[in-house]
Order: sequence, then structure tokens, then C-alpha cells
Amino acid sequence: MKAFEKAYQMKVRDIKIKDDFWSKIQNLIIEEAIPYQEKVLNDEIPGIEKSHAIANYRIAAGFEEGEFYGMVFQDSDVAKWLEGVAYSLSVTENKELERRADEVIDIIAQAQEEDGYLDTYFLLKEPDHKWQNLQECHELYCAGHLMEAAVAYYNETGKTRLLEVVKRLADHIDARFGQDKEHGIPGHQEIEVGLLRLYNATGIEKYRNLASYFIEERGQNPDYFREEREKRGWIHFDMDPEDREYSQCHAPVREQNEAVGHSVRAVYMYMAMADLAMEMQDESLYEACRRLWDNIVNKRMYITGGIGSTSEGEAFTLDYDLPNDSIYAETCASIAMVMFAKRMLDIEADGQYSDIMERELYNGILSGLQLDGKGFFYVNPLEVVKGVSGEQFGYKHVLPRRPRWYACACCPPNVVRLVTSLGTYAWSEKEDAIYSHIYLGQNVSLNKADIQVESRYPWKGDVCYTVSPKTKDKFTIAIHIPKHAQNLIVTLNGTTVDIEGKMIKGYLYLQREWAEGDKIHIQFDMKTRRVYANPKVRANAGCVAFMRGPVVYCFEQADQKELLQTYRIPSDANMREYLCDSGELEGMMLLEIEGYRLKEQEDLYSEEQAERENVRMTAIPYFAWGNREEGDMRVWMVE
Amino acid sequence: MKAFEKAYQMKVRDIKIKDDFWSKIQNLIIEEAIPYQEKVLNDEIPGIEKSHAIANYRIAAGFEEGEFYGMVFQDSDVAKWLEGVAYSLSVTENKELERRADEVIDIIAQAQEEDGYLDTYFLLKEPDHKWQNLQECHELYCAGHLMEAAVAYYNETGKTRLLEVVKRLADHIDARFGQDKEHGIPGHQEIEVGLLRLYNATGIEKYRNLASYFIEERGQNPDYFREEREKRGWIHFDMDPEDREYSQCHAPVREQNEAVGHSVRAVYMYMAMADLAMEMQDESLYEACRRLWDNIVNKRMYITGGIGSTSEGEAFTLDYDLPNDSIYAETCASIAMVMFAKRMLDIEADGQYSDIMERELYNGILSGLQLDGKGFFYVNPLEVVKGVSGEQFGYKHVLPRRPRWYACACCPPNVVRLVTSLGTYAWSEKEDAIYSHIYLGQNVSLNKADIQVESRYPWKGDVCYTVSPKTKDKFTIAIHIPKHAQNLIVTLNGTTVDIEGKMIKGYLYLQREWAEGDKIHIQFDMKTRRVYANPKVRANAGCVAFMRGPVVYCFEQADQKELLQTYRIPSDANMREYLCDSGELEGMMLLEIEGYRLKEQEDLYSEEQAERENVRMTAIPYFAWGNREEGDMRVWMVE
Repeated sequence: MKAFEKAYQMKVRDIKIKDDFWSKIQNLIIEEAIPYQEKVLNDEIPGIEKSHAIANYRIAAGFEEGEFYGMVFQDSDVAKWLEGVAYSLSVTENKELERRADEVIDIIAQAQEEDGYLDTYFLLKEPDHKWQNLQECHELYCAGHLMEAAVAYYNETGKTRLLEVVKRLADHIDARFGQDKEHGIPGHQEIEVGLLRLYNATGIEKYRNLASYFIEERGQNPDYFREEREKRGWIHFDMDPEDREYSQCHAPVREQNEAVGHSVRAVYMYMAMADLAMEMQDESLYEACRRLWDNIVNKRMYITGGIGSTSEGEAFTLDYDLPNDSIYAETCASIAMVMFAKRMLDIEADGQYSDIMERELYNGILSGLQLDGKGFFYVNPLEVVKGVSGEQFGYKHVLPRRPRWYACACCPPNVVRLVTSLGTYAWSEKEDAIYSHIYLGQNVSLNKADIQVESRYPWKGDVCYTVSPKTKDKFTIAIHIPKHAQNLIVTLNGTTVDIEGKMIKGYLYLQREWAEGDKIHIQFDMKTRRVYANPKVRANAGCVAFMRGPVVYCFEQADQKELLQTYRIPSDANMREYLCDSGELEGMMLLEIEGYRLKEQEDLYSEEQAERENVRMTAIPYFAWGNREEGDMRVWMVE
Repeated sequence: MKAFEKAYQMKVRDIKIKDDFWSKIQNLIIEEAIPYQEKVLNDEIPGIEKSHAIANYRIAAGFEEGEFYGMVFQDSDVAKWLEGVAYSLSVTENKELERRADEVIDIIAQAQEEDGYLDTYFLLKEPDHKWQNLQECHELYCAGHLMEAAVAYYNETGKTRLLEVVKRLADHIDARFGQDKEHGIPGHQEIEVGLLRLYNATGIEKYRNLASYFIEERGQNPDYFREEREKRGWIHFDMDPEDREYSQCHAPVREQNEAVGHSVRAVYMYMAMADLAMEMQDESLYEACRRLWDNIVNKRMYITGGIGSTSEGEAFTLDYDLPNDSIYAETCASIAMVMFAKRMLDIEADGQYSDIMERELYNGILSGLQLDGKGFFYVNPLEVVKGVSGEQFGYKHVLPRRPRWYACACCPPNVVRLVTSLGTYAWSEKEDAIYSHIYLGQNVSLNKADIQVESRYPWKGDVCYTVSPKTKDKFTIAIHIPKHAQNLIVTLNGTTVDIEGKMIKGYLYLQREWAEGDKIHIQFDMKTRRVYANPKVRANAGCVAFMRGPVVYCFEQADQKELLQTYRIPSDANMREYLCDSGELEGMMLLEIEGYRLKEQEDLYSEEQAERENVRMTAIPYFAWGNREEGDMRVWMVE
């Protein structure tokens, strides 16, 4: 693969997912989450945190009287919902929803000021304070999300109204900020990605240049936020402007080596850096992305793909500091990791990115969504303890149940936009090659071919690609083979392919003149694996976790009954896998593991080890935890 | 033993400690800590938290101009220092110190108002707010400490000036609060113990009755603090008056079954309950004390005797919730446990109390004091991790080094008053019997006998009591044999004693007509013990700790070099004990344990366990941790 070779833009409308695993989730999102979130945004759901997000726009547009309500970044909830709606319309036609989305877009357009400014918090509440508090006030963040929504809506529906709005907004921002204009960087990164998508959709270079400015300016003046605060003389959240690592402005981005600070801000920035590196074929910027990627995935990531070890600042902490119970691991951060991985894969097809992508999708992200589509986790713990999680100091953010909505509602619409656009993460297409990053049953229409994928993933390593080429020229289909695949067999039209020499960085490269109906059949075993954490990870010392394929398993009190810390899993424990055929977990592969349990003991401290009792334990996919009776959960079990 | 039989009051002046282990510590306290604390209280030490505590009294007494400075309970630092000075004067004569203490007492006396009121915060800062905020403002707490100081000063020096001050103060309080007067309970318990000691010293029953009122009134109206707050309409700390468990006013004390809330407040209350139960021969109150004792020691206590699992409210949490790294385990709380144990032992000689007393003394309390006597821990962790302890959210209160002083300086003077009066905890004397609770080399003058004790504890189970009886009547000497004693041999004048039938609840009862020079020689083995926590203790699952005699051991990076979580101790590990003959730990018994270490590994998650490397580990007494180079520490090691 030629690094930095231009990748074609993927659109949801070119992909129809038909997958035993994911179609159900996409449908849930479309049938449950999107309508529910629409009602939330319109304040039609009683008994939950009030949103008022659409009302803010209506008031700003002059359609109704009232005051701004909500967080300073409330606008972004509407933008993320619109982005999800845009994708969903390509998954499932829905004229009524589209009409209502058009209406919302119309309101947004009418709320925009003559000069292009658009942020309802400042329009309604502090009109004299615009652009004075980039650190805390999220104007650029909201603008970025609106740009992403506009591009998505344009790509999927062809409609330009919102695109025109964000172009005027981007022009407004561009007129104000830049190298020879007013200096500034966003407190919460997102505008960079938005501008780069807007550039991709419109080809207007000043948007790319402005994104580049915001990326490169970061960290040039580490005191920027302090100076900004002194200059304006007012505060919003009273965030510490000296905590530079929190918002990644401690050093120029090209000099950053460790993932620090607020994990979502960080990875949104890395995404944009990767986008820009690709666009500018900038090797040193890609190098910085790689260093940051390596630091995350090799030292600061939970086995589930979760990132952010502390609730203080929703942030990274230290290498190998990965507490399971006081964890943050925000769903948004795992989603950002998928977006980051996709951008890295567009630059260079490397299995280390796609392996993490599937780790995030099947674990840290999916755990954010209730199986019925009606609840969401913000924080995704690897250990839940009754009386501690959600209750004790240091653990209050760790909820044992998925709420329906949050006052700070970033995660639910983020899950929606990811799942509805999932197909776009599965592929990169370039001049001479098509890259398949994750297994996903679907019909996809690419430039060089239509491909039908049938997949039994993640429960079985059995995926078949049927190719309908659109060109007679030779081209490559490169398919990612997950690192965990055991006993790989690949056949092409029934004939075993000798993969010797065809595997490069986790991708199987098949080049030929493709014929109508050519079938690539990928088969591999996915035996349950015992996984150990690096000895430096204090939280997992003496513990073992289980994975099967990309799926991390966990143990719940719903199956084990007694306190999970009393169970032990011998290093040679017998295990069997079985398909669950009823209840909430129907259709999932579960594990039965033979181990033992330490029996009740009277003394708090004793010279005798507690007596043992042999038990059969059940492990379920981590993403499915918290869907049955409430109780303790843990991923890492004492060996 | 007859429960509730009156015990004679112990005075420090009747006891001369001559003990290889404790004399050094007493001397350090007397030579280092007391003078240092005197300088602190007089603001003569630059670069530390300003105290201003004596200046507050001087200003209130009219000796100088100025304003109150410090916490609302700043007065109590002076009282605790005076109490420690009183004991120290009986340990080591020091006319100059006594003169200066007399001067401080004189200032205190002159600060007292005509009507007996005495609290410099309110005298100087909020004279109109006296007695309005019992929840937050510690007036009764400070009064209680001053009463303890006054009784100690009177007992040890015979001087009555401070005693007269606190009698007037007690009269003032008694005139205000009571069953048929204004209702009230202290936010921080302490006045109860102070009043009961004052009653013991003076025989004035109204002080006992007022203590009884404060004890029994607690929890009768669980809304008391809320009503108090509504009535006064101002706040000091803005503490939540609805958090009734925090200050143990959720239920009448006789109905309390679990140790909840702020651990020092709780145990100060239990101490007073035990005092009152003894005084009133009140079985049901003793029963409540026993239930609370049991709950603490069987479900809510660290192996070191530390109590208080969370820094939020410095409080108890749940049964078996004993995190090692985010622990609170305040030194003051362990000291309170010794005081509680002594009161329970006065009621009934039961080894369960004296075993805990020695566990606290040799571990959770002594760890609060630096080996050079110049630093103090407030929080006593069982696991310290570089970059986490003292730095990350949830761990900021856990310091890796003992500071010299604290803004909230409760622990240092508490250590002083305990260590200087240590001898008084070693004995209970009743009509027909002398009870020895802990081993302590000393000459003690009791009513029935002078006894010389020679002890090689805690490093060797070898203690000899030489008796000089003062009566020809038969009496009993009952000596506590620690639960951990192995292969006990007792001789009386060289002849082995058949202990069959003489052991009752952990005490060896020897009754006879004692002759001058009678020698009781107690010998037992103290082999290193592997200790396991109850399987319900999540923090210690899969881990082992080591004890030898009463001493808990820990592992420090100073010896182990690599990260402590990478070490493993096989269940059949070879061990040897050896006496450290140089450096900071000279004279201490150390352990050498053969185990292995997991070597460096590249991957964050791996299907392979890391390679092993055999290592010899060194364990040191827990109380001595943090005295060498700074680094990680842990008590519980992965087995």
C-alpha cells in the first residue's frame, strides 16, 4: 500500500448492512434511539434531564419566546442527532423523519446571524461575550459538530441548506481566527475535524487551512488560555487555565508523545491530525499520530478499548494506570478511537489499527448501549461493586445501570452517529485497491466493484466476499485478518489460497482481474483465549480475562450469585463455549468455566485460606453486561 | 473477672517505662515532638502551616492585639499538647517545660469569660454566634479536649489551675444543655469523654450526668442538626445536616449496630459509651459497645488496625470494603481504638480487646510517626503507588511522606498524648486482681504490688514479671497471652506452670499469695505468619500479607527496586527472619522471602504470562515504611 494515497470518500448510502449481529443494533438505533432522542431534544419526555436544545434554536430564530437552557454546548446535541439522522436516512428511508430534520435545519438556518455567527448560548444569553472564552465555552466545538452534521446531511441526502449555513459559519470563524488574525485554539477540539470534512465535501481550501491553523497553533503558546482568561475577566466553569495537559496545549502537537488530559478532546484532536497528515501527505504529523496511538494502545487502554482512567477531567493518567472500578472509559472516547483508527487506516492499511477498531466496536462502544437501545452508559467500568459503584467517593460516576439520558448528553447521539454510519468504517478504497478493515455483512457499492459480504462474525470466523467488478483492470482486494484468528483458511472460488507472501501488516492482499461472482471465503477458529495484562498494570495483577475473537467477556452476579471476588479460575480451568438460546442474551456465545469459590469465613483475617468449593462459572460478552438483574460485574478474575 | 467491677485509675507517674522498643519512641516524642509542637503552637517554625493556636488564647486573654487565625477547632491543638506535656512530665522531669506549660494554662485561664465560656474562635471572631452551631463549630469538642488536658495535668502534677478552668467551663455547659434545658449534641464527639474524666477526677456527679445526657440524647432527634441549622440561619463549613450517619446521630446510640460515618467521631463516642457503661454498670450500653466493636474489628478494619475506608468524610463505608490505596485509616482513629479497647478491658478482661490494642499500637498508630519523631501521617495507606498516591483523583489524601505538621493538626498531638501515657493502657487494676494487657518493659507501682516487667517484645516472645507485693492477701495477676503466641511456656519462679484451666478469654490467671521477687516468665514463639483476608474483602483477593507477632510487614521499593505489583509470593515460599543491624531499620526484625517476579513485557495484553525471575524479597515492619528513599509500598502481595 502506498501511504498517503488518496482514499475515496465513503458514504452510508452506498452500503446496505445485512448482518446477523449489526443489523439488529442498527435497527434498534433507528427505531428506538433516534426517535427517543428527537423527543428528548424537543422536551417531550417527562421525568428525564430537560434538553431544550431545539427550543434554544427556535428562540434564537425568533419562532418562540424564552430563554436559553442547558449546557454551554447544548447546540451540539442537535448537531450530533442530525448527523445520525442523515446516516439513518440512507439505512432506512423515512420521509417523515427527513421532513422533520429539514425543519430543524430550517430553524438552525434562521437562528444564524447576518455575519454567519451561530451559537444559541451566546446569541441568547451572553451576546457581548462571543469568542472571548474559547477555553470553556465550546463555540468552536459546537461549530465543528454542526459542520460534521451538514456534511453528512449533504452526502446522504444531497441537500445543501445546512451545508450553506456551516460554510457561512466557517467563513465567519475564518475571518476572525488565524495566523495573521486573532489567535485562538478551541478548548474542546472538534472544529478541526469539522473543517476538514467541510473541505472534503466542498473542496474549499481555506477550510482546510483554518483546520491546519487550529491544529498547529495548539501548544505554540502554552499560556494562551491563561492570557485569554486575564483578558476577558470573566469565567464560565472556572476551569484551571494552567492545566495545559488537560486540553493538550502543553506542547505543539507534533511534539506530543503521550496521550494526556481529557481523553475525548485528545482523540478528537488526533483524528484531525491524522486527517490533515493524509491530506497534506505530512509524514512527521503522521509520525506524531503514530506515537500518540502507540502510547494509548500499548500503555493506556483497557482491554475493552476503553480509555481515560480517571473521572477527574475525564482523563488519561499514567502509563499502565488502569483501575477497573474507578475507571472513566467514556463511550465517546472509544467512538473517537474508531474514528481515529479509520483515519490512520486511510493513510496506511495496518492491522494494528483495525484490530483496535474491532476491539472498540465489540466492547467499549457497544457496552455503552443497552440491548434494547433505550439506555446509554457514559462511563464503562470493568468492575462494578454493589454499595461502592455509584455511591462511594471516587466511584460515584460509575453507574451500575444505563440511564436513558444525561444532562451532559454527549454519548448517546455519538453512539447513534457511529452505528448508523458503521459501514463507512469498514472500507478504504484507493486508486488500485479496496481495503476491508472489519467484517460486516453487507452489500457495498464501491468505485471498482460491488461487493456482497456475508459474515457470521463475531461469533464465528466465517466471512465470504462476493465480488462484482466494475472494471476489467486488475485491482487488489486487501482483507484484514484479525490478530486473534487461529487456523486461517482462505479460499478463492473454492480453491485454497496460499497466503504465504500475501499477508502484509495484518492484511491479506489478493490481486487479480476480478470476475463477476468471484468468492473470497475467509475461515478461522476463534477459541476462547485467556488474556493477561502487562505485569505493570497494578489493577490486574494476579488476574486473567477471557476473550473470544474480538469479544471480551465478563462475569456477572446474575450468573455467579456470590460476590465475584470470592471466585478463582485455575490456570488450567476447563472451558466450553455455547450459544445462549433464550433470554436477553439469546444468540450470544457464552462461556462456561470450571473454577472454584472461596467459601464463607468468619474471621476478617485468618492464617487459614478459606475452604474451596468447585463451581461452574458463566462468562458473558462484556458489551451485554448490566442488561439483567442488577449486581456486581468484573472482567478480570483472580486466577 | 467480675464485669463492671470498678477499676482503679492509672496515672503515668506510677509507671516508668524501660523498654527496648518503646523507651526510644517515648524519648523521641519527649525530645523531638513535644518541643517541636510547642514551637509550632507558638508560630516559631517557619515554612509550615501557621498554627497561631496559643496566640489565639493570648489575644482572647488580652495579652496581645490581633485576630483569630486557624480552624474553628484550633484551641484543641493546645489542649492535646498540654495533655501530652502533663504525661511527659511524669516520664521525664522538666521544670522549664512545666513552667512554660503553667504559663500557657495561665493564659487559657485568663481567656475564660466570667460565665465560664471558653473558645477563642467565638470569643474573638463570632461572639454573637456562641453555641448556635454545634454541628460544625466544635465548641464542645474543644471543651472536651481541654477537660482531658486538665485532668491529666492535675493527675500528673497535682496542679489544679486548669482543672478549675474546665470545671467552670463544664458548669457553664451544664447550665445550658440538658434534658430539661436547651437540647443539643456535639457535632464532633469528645465532650462526653472529657466530662467523664472530669467526673472521675473530681467525683462531681453532674459532669457524669451531663456526659450521659450528650450520649443518650444523640439520635433521639435525628433531625437535630437540620433544625439547628434552620434556626440559626448561618453556616460554617456547609456540612450536610441530613447526613446523619456521618455524625452517628441516625439512631439512639443503644440501637446502633454498625460503625458508620466519620471514624474518629464514632470511636470517640464508643469510648464514652464504654466509660459510661462501666460507671453505670449498664449492660445494655456495654452490649451496644460490643456490637459496634465487633462490627469494626470483624468487618471494617484493616490488618494494621486502621479504620475509615474513604477520605470522603474520613469515614467508614461498608462491611469488607477495605481499599488499600484510597484508604483513610487516620492515625487518630487508631489511637481512638486503643482508648476504646482500654475502656472495654476495664469492663471485662477479654483478649479480643487487648489483641486489637497491640495491633493498633505496633501498626496503625506507630506508622503515623516518623522514626526520627519529626514527621506524622494523618492517613496510613496499605499501598502506595508513585504517580497515583498523593496525585490522582481519589488518592490525593494519601501522602508518600510524613509531613511535619498539618493545617488540621489533630494527629501529631494525639500520638504524643498516647505514647507519653502508654503505660496507663497496659494495666487494669481491680479489687482482687491486676490485669496486664500488653507487654511493656517497666516498673509500675500498683495498689497491690510494684511490678517490674522486662520485655523483649515485639521482636521476641519473652517477658518477665517480677512482683513486689504490697499486701499479704491472695490476689490474682492475669496476663494477656496474645492470640498469635505459639508454643507458650510459662514459668513461675522457674517452675513450669500448667496453664490448663488458667486461661480465660485470652488471659492467664495466676492467683496466690505473692512473695517478694516472685517471677512470672512468659515465653512463646513468634514465627512469621501468612495472613489471608476474608474472601469478601475485594481489595485483597488473591493476596497474602505477613505478620510476625503483633507486627504487620510490608514491602517497599527501597528493597525490591521494581514495581511491587510485578512480584509474586508462592504459597510455599521459603522465608527467614533476621535482625537488621544497620541503617534506619537497625534493631528491627526483617523478613526475607523467596518468590519471583514477572519480567518486563512489551504487550499491554498478551495470551502469554510474562516470564518469571526468581527473587529474594525483603519485608519490613509496616510501621517503619516511608523512612528510606521514596517509592512504592504494599502490605498485600499477590500470591
